[in-house]
Amino acid sequence: MPIATPLTELLGIRHPILSAPMDTIAGSRLTRAVSEAGGFGILGGGYGDRTRLETEARELKGFAPFGIGFITWSLAKQPELLEIALEARPQAVMLSFGDVAPFAPRIKASGARLICQVQTEDMGKQALDAGAEILIAQGTEAGGHGASRTTVDIVPAIVDLAAGRVPVVAAGGIADGRGLAAMMMLGASGVLVGTRFYASVEANGAEEAKLRIRDAGSNDTVRGIVPDWSRKLFWPAPFTARTLVNSHIRSWTGREVELLQRADEIARDYAAAKMAGDFEIAAVFAGEAVGLIHDIPPAADIVERIAIEAEQLLGGRRNSAGATQVLSSSPSRAG
Amino acid sequence: MPIATPLTELLGIRHPILSAPMDTIAGSRLTRAVSEAGGFGILGGGYGDRTRLETEARELKGFAPFGIGFITWSLAKQPELLEIALEARPQAVMLSFGDVAPFAPRIKASGARLICQVQTEDMGKQALDAGAEILIAQGTEAGGHGASRTTVDIVPAIVDLAAGRVPVVAAGGIADGRGLAAMMMLGASGVLVGTRFYASVEANGAEEAKLRIRDAGSNDTVRGIVPDWSRKLFWPAPFTARTLVNSHIRSWTGREVELLQRADEIARDYAAAKMAGDFEIAAVFAGEAVGLIHDIPPAADIVERIAIEAEQLLGGRRNSAGATQVLSSSPSRAG
Repeated sequence: MPIATPLTELLGIRHPILSAPMDTIAGSRLTRAVSEAGGFGILGGGYGDRTRLETEARELKGFAPFGIGFITWSLAKQPELLEIALEARPQAVMLSFGDVAPFAPRIKASGARLICQVQTEDMGKQALDAGAEILIAQGTEAGGHGASRTTVDIVPAIVDLAAGRVPVVAAGGIADGRGLAAMMMLGASGVLVGTRFYASVEANGAEEAKLRIRDAGSNDTVRGIVPDWSRKLFWPAPFTARTLVNSHIRSWTGREVELLQRADEIARDYAAAKMAGDFEIAAVFAGEAVGLIHDIPPAADIVERIAIEAEQLLGGRRNSAGATQVLSSSPSRAG
Repeated sequence: MPIATPLTELLGIRHPILSAPMDTIAGSRLTRAVSEAGGFGILGGGYGDRTRLETEARELKGFAPFGIGFITWSLAKQPELLEIALEARPQAVMLSFGDVAPFAPRIKASGARLICQVQTEDMGKQALDAGAEILIAQGTEAGGHGASRTTVDIVPAIVDLAAGRVPVVAAGGIADGRGLAAMMMLGASGVLVGTRFYASVEANGAEEAKLRIRDAGSNDTVRGIVPDWSRKLFWPAPFTARTLVNSHIRSWTGREVELLQRADEIARDYAAAKMAGDFEIAAVFAGEAVGLIHDIPPAADIVERIAIEAEQLLGGRRNSAGATQVLSSSPSRAG
C-alpha cells in the first residue's frame, strides 16, 4: 500500500516522489512518465528559452498532475514566462534559487501550489513568509545547482522550521527507497529526485551523459563554478553546480581567474563540445547519488522501485541491510 | 521495546547507540554513563598520553560493556598503548584514521571486537580485509576528524560494500532519534554519536565549550586544518577537523602557509588559550549536529531520548513531522 503523507494529499499523487525540474533534461516526456507512474513530474523551465517552454508546456496541458519549475533569478529576467507556464494549468510551480516574493501571489492566484526549494533556514523563512505551500530542503549532495549544507543537516533543520505548517520534501543524494524511507524518518513528507531520473529512458539528455551517470561512483562528482563560468553563466552566491568530474573541470579548478579572463574563447569551445557530445569538456550535471545508479530504465520503473522499497522498509519488517536484519517485532507504540 | 540489530547482538547492548571516542572529552565517566544507559560507551584513547590512558582504562576495568578507541596513525607511534587498553578487557577496540592491519590480529586475539571507522569505500575494503567486525561509515558532518563524503552518501555505500557480512554503524550529523531511525532505513545497524554526548553532564570538557555547542546553529561549524596546524598536529590526508567557527579560525583560514611559518608562536598562544578556556582561539571540536542540540543533560537522558524517539518512528505510527502525519497504516509486507 502506498505511503500517504501530507505531500501526497496536497498534490493528489500516489507516491511521495517528485522529479526535479532539471533544466532541459526534464522535458515533457519525463514529466509525464513520472506522473503517470504515480509520482509528480516537474517540467524544467530552463534558462528562459520561450519557444521550448511553450512547446513543452503545451504537451502537458490538460494532463494531470504535473508541475513546472523555474530558476527564480532567471525567471526574474523574463517574468512573462510565468504566464506561459500557468497557461498549461500545472498543479504546482516550483521556484528555486532566488526571491520568490514577486511571483508567489500570481502563482497562488492561479490555483497552482507554490513549491519553494531552499538551502538554508533563512531561505526557508523567506519562502514561508512569501506563502510557500511546500518546502524542498536541498542538500549539497544534489546534482546541478545547490549550496553547501548536507541533506542530513538541512532536512531536519527545515522540518523543525516548518513545524508541521507545510510539508517538507528532501532533496540531495536520494535515488532509492532507502533514501525515501530515511528522509521520512527525518520528518520529510517525500523526496525530490533528480540524477536518478536523468538516467532514465525518457530524460531529454544525451545517451553518453546517461551512460556516464550509470558508470560513475559517488566520489566522481564535484561542486564548483567551473561549469557555469565556462558557459558565461554567473550564478549568484551561494549557489554552485555539482557535476561529474571531467578533464575540463580538472584542468580549470583553481584557475578560475584565468577562465574568466578567457571567458569568450572558453565559452565558444564549451558550446561546441556540448553540441558534439564531448563530455570531457561539457559537464554532466549529476549528484552524489550516481553511486547508487547502475542502469537506465524507464522512469516508471524508477518510481515503482523507490516506492516499493520504501514501503517495505517503512513497513518495519527489515532494514535495508537485508534479510538477516530483523527490527524489533513489537516496537513501542507510545507515539 | 528496544531496537534489536546485528550490532546490539554482537556487542550485547540494549540500544544501537555508540558514543564516539572523542579525544580526552570521552573519558571513563562518559563512557560508563553511556554504557550504563544501555548504549555502548567508547573511551577516547587520545593522542598517546600513557598516564591518562592507564588511569581512565583502570576506571573501566571489570565494567561491561565498553570500548576503547584510538587514532590509528597516532597509535602506530606508540603501539604499546594497545596493551594498556586491552589490559582493561574492553568488549571492543575502535580504530579510526589509518592502517588497521598491524593491530587487527592482536585485538581479535584478545577477544575484543574490532570496530573500524572508515570514510571511503577503499578504506572500508581495507578494514574488511584486515578483519573488521563492525564498520563505522563516517560522514563529513561529523565533529572532529573526518573526510569529505556526506553521511547520506557514504552510509549506503558502505552498507552495500559490507553486504550483510558485518554490521555498519552510521556517524556524522546524528543527535536524535530521527537520525537513528533514518540511518536504520539506509541500512545501518546503529549510530555513533559524538557532539551530542560532548554536550552532556559527564563529558570531560570545559563548561564553556559545552555551552557553545548548545548555543551554536548547524551552520556554525567548519571543516579545515587550522585547528590542527595551530597545535602543530599534522594529520595525514584526507583527514581534516570540524570545529565551531571562532575568531582564530576566521582569522587564519586562507593564511595557512603563514600559520605554518609562525607555527611555534601560534602553538604557544593556542596552548595558553586552551588552558585559559578561551574558545575564541582554542577550537571546540563539534559536528553539524550542533543545530539539533539545545541542552546539556546527563548522558543517560541522551541515550534514552534517541532510543525512544527512534523506536516510535520505526514503529511506523508516525514520521517525525509529528502527529499530523500518519504513515500508511498497512504498508506492504512483501519484504
